[in-house]
Amino acid sequence: MATVRVSLPAPSAVEDSELLRKACQGWGTDEKTVIDILAHRDAAQRSQIMQSYEELYHENLIKRLESELSGDFEKAMYRWILDPIEREAFIANEALKEELNYRVIIETAYINSTDELLVVKKAYQHRFKRSLEEDVASNTSGDLRKLLVGLVSTYRYDGEEVDNSLASSEANILHDAIKKREFSHDEVIRIFTTRSKCQLNATFNRYKDENGVSISKDLSAGAPDPFPSALRIIIRCIVSPHKYFEKLLRSVLNKAEIDEDTLTRIIVTRAEKDLKIVKDMYEERVNASLANSIGKQASGKYKDFLLALAGN
Amino acid sequence: MATVRVSLPAPSAVEDSELLRKACQGWGTDEKTVIDILAHRDAAQRSQIMQSYEELYHENLIKRLESELSGDFEKAMYRWILDPIEREAFIANEALKEELNYRVIIETAYINSTDELLVVKKAYQHRFKRSLEEDVASNTSGDLRKLLVGLVSTYRYDGEEVDNSLASSEANILHDAIKKREFSHDEVIRIFTTRSKCQLNATFNRYKDENGVSISKDLSAGAPDPFPSALRIIIRCIVSPHKYFEKLLRSVLNKAEIDEDTLTRIIVTRAEKDLKIVKDMYEERVNASLANSIGKQASGKYKDFLLALAGN
Repeated sequence: MATVRVSLPAPSAVEDSELLRKACQGWGTDEKTVIDILAHRDAAQRSQIMQSYEELYHENLIKRLESELSGDFEKAMYRWILDPIEREAFIANEALKEELNYRVIIETAYINSTDELLVVKKAYQHRFKRSLEEDVASNTSGDLRKLLVGLVSTYRYDGEEVDNSLASSEANILHDAIKKREFSHDEVIRIFTTRSKCQLNATFNRYKDENGVSISKDLSAGAPDPFPSALRIIIRCIVSPHKYFEKLLRSVLNKAEIDEDTLTRIIVTRAEKDLKIVKDMYEERVNASLANSIGKQASGKYKDFLLALAGN
Repeated sequence: MATVRVSLPAPSAVEDSELLRKACQGWGTDEKTVIDILAHRDAAQRSQIMQSYEELYHENLIKRLESELSGDFEKAMYRWILDPIEREAFIANEALKEELNYRVIIETAYINSTDELLVVKKAYQHRFKRSLEEDVASNTSGDLRKLLVGLVSTYRYDGEEVDNSLASSEANILHDAIKKREFSHDEVIRIFTTRSKCQLNATFNRYKDENGVSISKDLSAGAPDPFPSALRIIIRCIVSPHKYFEKLLRSVLNKAEIDEDTLTRIIVTRAEKDLKIVKDMYEERVNASLANSIGKQASGKYKDFLLALAGN
């Protein structure tokens, strides 16, 4: 369930283009109009607007907006108007720059279905002339590399068949490795990177049944370390993507310092998909409106834009 | 260029089915008729025959032939009448049983283009309800596992762009690792499993230019070891698939003991693709006809069938 409220009936792409052009001309930019239009059009409509804008004014709308807007608002708008698949490829590429954001790579690999991930990988190759796999491989190192490259590489089986005896034996393998704190054991990496989501879910359930404690809990014992943290993110993405995003949203909105990149990513990527569900879970959990929480962290047109995407 | 000689005009699928049915009835099987028909039909025609046979006799032709034929002839015929994509999935699965045949897994990963490999992986999942990746991972171990899982997983970039400075720096990385005999160094695995074929080709050329000796030669020094052997197979598959198959054919046909599985695989999988090129290279190299060489190694209907597929 999406939060984006698409205008009904929406004006034509030509009408939208004319208003956007007007909003970008002269001194300053009429940012309110930009938000009023673009935050209320779905992906297909945005794509038509970009095409029609290009035809009318021989100018790329994305580039024009990049030069008109600034800061977090510009970044959020840039991500929003990209085609959703291309946006995922772009976000994955950004996550590999300078300070590696492995959380984003895990989301790319696990929130998507097998075929959705494939489409993102094709878009990545089209845009960057390299594979996502080689970029993940050359921007990471050590055990984390083995895990992340495996995650984005595998064309995972998406069927619902589960092999229960396999789930049991692999739950034992995981438990033995975790007990010895050998989180990055080859067998752990093999299981996490190659098994289907349904099979992994069964393995995690078996783990809890047999040991009386969840695998996530076992992984969180001890000093913070990126490798078991990455495994825990994977588990959350597999077990419940909605809960995963709700928890992430909560952690972002309750930090002293705002993490705009993560906040933008959640709102922009989920707004047309399932943000309504995530928002409801969030509001029930914190007993406050998401709009209120965003309002405390973000400001200006950035805030207005996020609120519009979140359905306010 | 294929070697298979398709009958022109070919009889209808119904006529073929009737003759095949007759060949399978009564005492003994008329194997000559089976070869005369099936070795001279292309993949689409074979598929139509199977469909029409099923409709006419409510019987699966593959299963019927399995019960009528035996030994290497049966195995070769079974592989031949499978749909080519399904055949590759089947052969890869066979290669993972009991004694691992990593050469076959490398062929699957490197002889195919990126999108061909994807189609084989989809067929694998459809047939076995698991991914090729997880089966490779759970039937291998150690460094070879890292290499093989990486090879079959990556959705490799298939474009022709080459980054020359990257080729140079990665040629150095490979050279340093090989010099220290650290064949399975993480960086070696990263480069072989993630880079595009064109990029790898450039890297191998740079390696030779800078060191005066080819990477293959450097890898072959020292005692035989599966890991550097696997790397050399990869290099040959990338640099020239035709030369690779010619050399493999030569080694099979000049052994004291025949390796039927490999011989069958080469003839059956290449007959409709490029066996004519491989055969010409072979005959020029050994100065004898391929038919003659096959005749010395194989016998009976197995020999007749291979010869028919090889264009004799």
